[in-house]
Amino acid sequence: MSKGLNDSRTDFPILDQEVNGEPLVYLDNAATTQKPVSVLQTIMHYYEHDNANVHRGVHTLAERATEQFEAARDKVAAFINAPSRKTIVYTRSTTESLNWIASSFGNAVVNEGDEIVISELEHHSNVVPWQQVAKNQHATLKYIGLTADGELDMDDARKQITDKTKIVAIAHASNVMGVVNPIKELAQLAHAHNAYMVADGAQSTPHLKVDVQDLDVDFYAFSGHKMLAPTGIGILYGKPEILDEMEPTQFGGEMINEVHEQAADWKESPWKFEAGTPNISGAIALGSAIDYLNNLGMDNISAYEQELVDYTLPKLTQIDGITVYGPHDPAKHTGVLSFNLEGLHPHDVATGLDMDGIAVRAGHHCAQPLMEYLSCEATCRASFYFYNTKEEADRLLDALNEVKEFFANGTSKAERTV
Amino acid sequence: MSKGLNDSRTDFPILDQEVNGEPLVYLDNAATTQKPVSVLQTIMHYYEHDNANVHRGVHTLAERATEQFEAARDKVAAFINAPSRKTIVYTRSTTESLNWIASSFGNAVVNEGDEIVISELEHHSNVVPWQQVAKNQHATLKYIGLTADGELDMDDARKQITDKTKIVAIAHASNVMGVVNPIKELAQLAHAHNAYMVADGAQSTPHLKVDVQDLDVDFYAFSGHKMLAPTGIGILYGKPEILDEMEPTQFGGEMINEVHEQAADWKESPWKFEAGTPNISGAIALGSAIDYLNNLGMDNISAYEQELVDYTLPKLTQIDGITVYGPHDPAKHTGVLSFNLEGLHPHDVATGLDMDGIAVRAGHHCAQPLMEYLSCEATCRASFYFYNTKEEADRLLDALNEVKEFFANGTSKAERTV
Repeated sequence: MSKGLNDSRTDFPILDQEVNGEPLVYLDNAATTQKPVSVLQTIMHYYEHDNANVHRGVHTLAERATEQFEAARDKVAAFINAPSRKTIVYTRSTTESLNWIASSFGNAVVNEGDEIVISELEHHSNVVPWQQVAKNQHATLKYIGLTADGELDMDDARKQITDKTKIVAIAHASNVMGVVNPIKELAQLAHAHNAYMVADGAQSTPHLKVDVQDLDVDFYAFSGHKMLAPTGIGILYGKPEILDEMEPTQFGGEMINEVHEQAADWKESPWKFEAGTPNISGAIALGSAIDYLNNLGMDNISAYEQELVDYTLPKLTQIDGITVYGPHDPAKHTGVLSFNLEGLHPHDVATGLDMDGIAVRAGHHCAQPLMEYLSCEATCRASFYFYNTKEEADRLLDALNEVKEFFANGTSKAERTV
Repeated sequence: MSKGLNDSRTDFPILDQEVNGEPLVYLDNAATTQKPVSVLQTIMHYYEHDNANVHRGVHTLAERATEQFEAARDKVAAFINAPSRKTIVYTRSTTESLNWIASSFGNAVVNEGDEIVISELEHHSNVVPWQQVAKNQHATLKYIGLTADGELDMDDARKQITDKTKIVAIAHASNVMGVVNPIKELAQLAHAHNAYMVADGAQSTPHLKVDVQDLDVDFYAFSGHKMLAPTGIGILYGKPEILDEMEPTQFGGEMINEVHEQAADWKESPWKFEAGTPNISGAIALGSAIDYLNNLGMDNISAYEQELVDYTLPKLTQIDGITVYGPHDPAKHTGVLSFNLEGLHPHDVATGLDMDGIAVRAGHHCAQPLMEYLSCEATCRASFYFYNTKEEADRLLDALNEVKEFFANGTSKAERTV
């Protein structure tokens, strides 16, 4: 039996368990990924040998902690081909990164009558912060529509992005539709109109090679926990000249240069953005996660996930009564598979799959505008990572047929085998 | 040899190491504390068995993760005697908690001509956010002075807090001066003038029993990493009726009720404040840290730390040429000991101590206004936790004398013993 890309599955202790009497099939990787032993060992080693606050102490532990914390920043920079560590800001999550961009940079550059352009497939984290900027600045929030198969409609993009546009903010990969958006082309379009390009990389960075300089984005945001690192650590990349100009959104220890009773000034980027004690162990563990991903190779990860999609998507679309969202051409589809079974609520489907040990997500996936656009309230979503296997895809496909049968006939596999 | 309160020292693997050839004496607990095996095991168990995103999935792992995440919130509420889990907001840190209070609640209630009252001994995290509010709202930031021995001058507090005051924001315990401030009395004073009381609990919550209802504070902020939990998790407590009114500062997934293309509304507190994937493992580990502290007993911790201070402070003040900041009466002094040696830069002293394996902090301790007030640029700071011992205090005292001798005579213990 396959054990994922390069037998990587055995590095993930959590996957070796039964749920409801069946071997766990974890297909909720777009929500969060599991952690390899090497990342967990990095956390343990840090707390058992080196833990101290960073940038603050001259003692040995503080120096060790600071060195590892900044070395992880260098790993992040190299991973997305950022020009230097100064362009890499540690945040809690993609959501925080996007909020900081919107509330600081967005509110500074967007004026009354300006336009912000997002798309119909954005996650709430790339919708609501821009609604706030539009409200604050009396600006307009516009949406790029989708083609019939769920891709970004680039003809519409060319209409929506105009000289009135100040910011274009688009997901690099959709967390629902299983598409990768042409960020480089969008950035060119934005820049041709003197607008700034923000990319939400939460669903792309874990799965494909990202080069922020080649994409020529002004900002790029992503989360550690969706790429093998712990929760509570995210990244905000910004072009150096933009981060230099951008004001911090949080104030306090370690981000300041000097504080007097009535005024203060800031350090240079990225440290001016990192007020207070950061998630030190989270950042160091993100560095370890990047080591793991580099060792597998991002191109290999992309190719392996494509294999899983090539195998699964055609079988999935053949299930009677299923609606699969996004492109049906596997070559255009990522490892995020959203679907509904006719007549069944996605929560019931997900609960049925869980009875078979299969973890998928059901809901609006923090994309209610997209749900409105698709005229559905919710979907089921199965999402792969490189430790998943074709056997697990088969388990999903079989279980979906069982769930259909159960709701049609009121019997389950368990009952049938009694 | 003593092993800390109830032999707790053996629960902290990091303490069992040599630094520069000497057994480590970790006295930088006001910057961050070390983690017991039980907390580390909680993190490992979570990632090896239960890791999933919270509040989002119907599958088994998501339910387990959500249950543990919310159970930890209940532990935090009970730990500070908060009325319910709804009053406990997960943040990154004390700094983030104070920033959210200032930028959301502060900017909403402070108007032109109003006054915000803080003190001369605040950490930058409780200074700079209020400078920003004062600047935004054209309000005035006022400072309560200190008595000769470094305590808050309550006579001055009664002068500074007037009917013009909208917010009083004070550290419960100082991170430099080793004093505990009379927060309950300050809250009464603030409320008598219809002002709100914000307490920075970063240096108090780890060391003494906190009862937010008895203190009658409107807000209380603290960090997990200063009380045995990992970095990247903090708490914002607010009175329920205030959190109900307070607007979120970050927007995105999981904090919303409904999102439409042009508008969105929020969930109830505390979830409306927690946009995006939170630090799930950090929150669960904070619950485990609280279990550990409760098992030792906060009153026992306070009493044991007082014993260490009673033992150390009189000997420290007797070192020739030393200035010890804050009260010299051990009964009035916490386990935070700030000092300078005449003619020596605190960084040199800290480096000298590190050569003897002793970790203390040197610097302005993110309290530059206090440094200005004390007319010094920096201090050394040794800070105890319950796993420290009198033998370690002796190591500090001996090493300080050696450092003095080294800088006076140019010889160190190492050289002398050659």
